[in-house]
Amino acid sequence: MYPFTRDVAKWVVSTGVRDGLLTVFVQHTSASLVMQENADPDVVLDLADFFERLVPENDARYRHTTEGSDDMPAHIRSALTQTSLSIPVIEGRMALGTWQGIYLFEHRAEPYRRSVVLHLLA
Amino acid sequence: MYPFTRDVAKWVVSTGVRDGLLTVFVQHTSASLVMQENADPDVVLDLADFFERLVPENDARYRHTTEGSDDMPAHIRSALTQTSLSIPVIEGRMALGTWQGIYLFEHRAEPYRRSVVLHLLA
Amino acid sequence: MYPFTRDVAKWVVSTGVRDGLLTVFVQHTSASLVMQENADPDVVLDLADFFERLVPENDARYRHTTEGSDDMPAHIRSALTQTSLSIPVIEGRMALGTWQGIYLFEHRAEPYRRSVVLHLLA
Repeated sequence: MYPFTRDVAKWVVSTGVRDGLLTVFVQHTSASLVMQENADPDVVLDLADFFERLVPENDARYRHTTEGSDDMPAHIRSALTQTSLSIPVIEGRMALGTWQGIYLFEHRAEPYRRSVVLHLLA
Repeated sequence: MYPFTRDVAKWVVSTGVRDGLLTVFVQHTSASLVMQENADPDVVLDLADFFERLVPENDARYRHTTEGSDDMPAHIRSALTQTSLSIPVIEGRMALGTWQGIYLFEHRAEPYRRSVVLHLLA
Repeated sequence: MYPFTRDVAKWVVSTGVRDGLLTVFVQHTSASLVMQENADPDVVLDLADFFERLVPENDARYRHTTEGSDDMPAHIRSALTQTSLSIPVIEGRMALGTWQGIYLFEHRAEPYRRSVVLHLLA
């Protein structure tokens, strides 16, 4: 899980928008987005472990196996989390709570280049 | 799971909007929305199977049984997926990744007529 | 699970906005939002029970335990549900289906004061 709250916050400031709606949108179906606690790094480790237990990699019942044994679990884990996050922007800043951080949740075993669209409507 | 990306894409083009935010909103609590891979049809079959295993239909612990044994699992599966999808529209088109498709996820056993609201804010 | 659809509906009317996009955003990572059936109160009891079974409180594999045994499950249950809900506003009212209600899902054992941001973009 990769935190990128600071990058998003910087971009929001750079737009000069004071009041609007930010959409964070991931253009993939085997990586997703989550809002999670940003204080204790153990939280996202425990979260990732939970998803590995909930959606096991080697389940003989999967039909979709041609792209690797980690691909179908990646799609399911994506469906259980978010493709987009909607965050109000108030007085030029995201209205996040103190402990909220934005994370990309990579569900494939190999590293991939991932695209996230930031869209701010004022 | 019913794909309807093309219907949404056509509607977006018909509005003439070049830049905005599309909201796809399902007006039900026993059907939901997911963004999933649109290439291999096995993906959505495996996904549906997973949700049937995760949220079994005949669980004696459910209190809410008056609307049929498939109703409470339908509500839970809806809560685990999405009621709305937020998709940026850029240069007149949804900013979807190559493999992303929009699906209605019907959780009841019998077929129902379902309503989805498309809302485009520019 | 605390229903607050009426409070949100009143606020939407008070803004005088006829057409727009409402974002309901919870500023926490151990409480979340769900859209659920508002008719039979058993539905949300069954839903809460399901999440307690799916994400058990006492799992020796959790690393993050310093904030109490109910904290890590709270984060996971939040990740499986929603931080924000996007609801189209049409003709001055939320475009909810007949049975849809908005709920705050408190995942901690003790009561907490929770903040929800309502943001309406027209």
